[in-house]
Amino acid sequence: MSQIYLDRIDRVRNAMADQDVDAVLISLGQDLPYLTGYEAMPLERLTMLVVPRDGDAQLVIPRLEAPRVTPRPGVFEILPWDETDDPVALAASLVPGATTIAVGDQMWARFLVELLPHFPNATFSRAVEIVGPLRMSKDQAEIDALLAAGAAVDRIAAELQAGRIPLVGRTEADVSADLSARIVAEGHHHVNFAIVAAGENAASPHHHPGSRVIRENEVVLCDFGGTYDGYCSDITRCVFTGDVEAEAPDLAAAYGVLHEAQQAAVAAAVVGTPCQEIDRTARRIIADGGYGEYFIHRTGHGIGMEGHEDPYIVEGNDLPLAAGHAFSVEPGIYVPGRWGIRLEDIVVATADGPLPANNADHHLVSLT
Amino acid sequence: MSQIYLDRIDRVRNAMADQDVDAVLISLGQDLPYLTGYEAMPLERLTMLVVPRDGDAQLVIPRLEAPRVTPRPGVFEILPWDETDDPVALAASLVPGATTIAVGDQMWARFLVELLPHFPNATFSRAVEIVGPLRMSKDQAEIDALLAAGAAVDRIAAELQAGRIPLVGRTEADVSADLSARIVAEGHHHVNFAIVAAGENAASPHHHPGSRVIRENEVVLCDFGGTYDGYCSDITRCVFTGDVEAEAPDLAAAYGVLHEAQQAAVAAAVVGTPCQEIDRTARRIIADGGYGEYFIHRTGHGIGMEGHEDPYIVEGNDLPLAAGHAFSVEPGIYVPGRWGIRLEDIVVATADGPLPANNADHHLVSLT
Repeated sequence: MSQIYLDRIDRVRNAMADQDVDAVLISLGQDLPYLTGYEAMPLERLTMLVVPRDGDAQLVIPRLEAPRVTPRPGVFEILPWDETDDPVALAASLVPGATTIAVGDQMWARFLVELLPHFPNATFSRAVEIVGPLRMSKDQAEIDALLAAGAAVDRIAAELQAGRIPLVGRTEADVSADLSARIVAEGHHHVNFAIVAAGENAASPHHHPGSRVIRENEVVLCDFGGTYDGYCSDITRCVFTGDVEAEAPDLAAAYGVLHEAQQAAVAAAVVGTPCQEIDRTARRIIADGGYGEYFIHRTGHGIGMEGHEDPYIVEGNDLPLAAGHAFSVEPGIYVPGRWGIRLEDIVVATADGPLPANNADHHLVSLT
Repeated sequence: MSQIYLDRIDRVRNAMADQDVDAVLISLGQDLPYLTGYEAMPLERLTMLVVPRDGDAQLVIPRLEAPRVTPRPGVFEILPWDETDDPVALAASLVPGATTIAVGDQMWARFLVELLPHFPNATFSRAVEIVGPLRMSKDQAEIDALLAAGAAVDRIAAELQAGRIPLVGRTEADVSADLSARIVAEGHHHVNFAIVAAGENAASPHHHPGSRVIRENEVVLCDFGGTYDGYCSDITRCVFTGDVEAEAPDLAAAYGVLHEAQQAAVAAAVVGTPCQEIDRTARRIIADGGYGEYFIHRTGHGIGMEGHEDPYIVEGNDLPLAAGHAFSVEPGIYVPGRWGIRLEDIVVATADGPLPANNADHHLVSLT
């Protein structure tokens, strides 16, 4: 099991040499567990993996957390610090004279502020340029984990679409709690989010589920996911609490365009295609349908150990898809004050074409 | 309701003038809701409050999050950015030529890395030096919220001590899930943590509850808390699954020392006393009892909108307590491979002396 971490640290060192980076400093976020198997606590006490270009990596860690760490000989040593020590000075002392330093995206800015005076002549960059390409290309075990996570939320979506999750008369918050419980019951060890947005609230893409009671004859947008065996799920399905064709033909028509755009974008996710081309595919169809101004976000984000990571499916990202890239395809149409709709699957790019991790019914199901 | 935010922003500006800070940049964490009422999502899309020393504050925010923000005229304006914009460049453009810039502790380092080239001659500092003193001194409404949060977890501790939360034969993870459900049932809107550590596992202060089954005649350390009406609870109590005097007299003796140390430290928490003196009070008693080497962390941390904030009760912090300071007092004794114990209350310093927010039984209760 340590072999995988040895391989990953080796690849980090190779990338450091290629990019002329003297030191990589990793703290919060999933780069640390990806490289070491250990996840730092999001607290004010610094945990930091210090990887010099040459020499052993060291995990600077509060002494009271040290009992929780499994040492990995050859991958990293442990360097505990006591409550009255200066852990930033300790970390800096491990890479004296470094002039090119890459720091993890999610490290607290506090620690970078404290590092700056230790390296007055250094240039700082994002460690995602080193670790991101590694994490972006999923191996088979990682793909299998994403597929299992997707199948788990698909089962919840199927319950929703079958009308077995009560909606009308309940608050968004109630339904969100219900989805959260099901995410855990389906085997996730952590709930990441469970957006439930009814009617006009669905026009806010990241609506916070609240006391709004769900009524008949309106759209209910559900976007939910968790972490399953270390990898994330993320799915969006909309249902209509009535007969959508009869009660809201305009919404049904818009959904038809959205559905077409999402399926076309998934189909476009073939190896070699630039990420932005997938975004353009969805955007073109939605614009042609007359809803262009209501599609206010990018088409997707990478997914893996984190819910949002490289590659981003957005205009301006000309990275060509490679086998093992995994990401969401989730166009939406949001009409302020009226309604919002989104349709989201996780997709893995493979040599055999796009492999969806979600296969729940893609239609706007009428619950009558 | 906007008045409180107007007052807080005014006090930030005064502190900026006093400390000669040109710009305060706030992103993740509780400084933002403290100043604006809005909490940023912990995602890769930048949300940043930019406070220039003079002129209006602006909330740089992804356009898709903008519907979730309540504007506060006079406190801040909203500046949405689109998916293909560079939000860091946008934020930097609001404080051109700033040479002293304070950034929030929990901002992702990624954004500071991206800010650096925009301000090649600037000195960066921690915004906690500006906002921390404001947040540290709780007003009466904040103290009331902390007391209500404390009373809520006290009720759970009382159930634990009354033997109404089954322990023997269950896993730590099961009991942790039970505590989490009770935290929500008692009115918290968020569970922050629920450490359950049995026997030798309790020697790891931040043990992650797992598949270890709780047995008879061992200590079970429970440290749990959540967020209640925007303010945090945090309590630790230990129970013994048997007759502790008969089965583990050494543990009972150590707990007696711990209890004395904790009560003395709480009593020492009077206005004007330096924070480190409270730590010393607890540490002296534990050392005199012969357990000094097993008390491996500071005595406490401030608490409020965040679970850990200023003031820290640690050697080296000579800040004198002032009325309205709120913090944990939580000494512990951890004997590796055998057992661990900790006793924690939240305490508010007031003009009338230390006011505990937790009043659950402080003894090591034997559950027989």
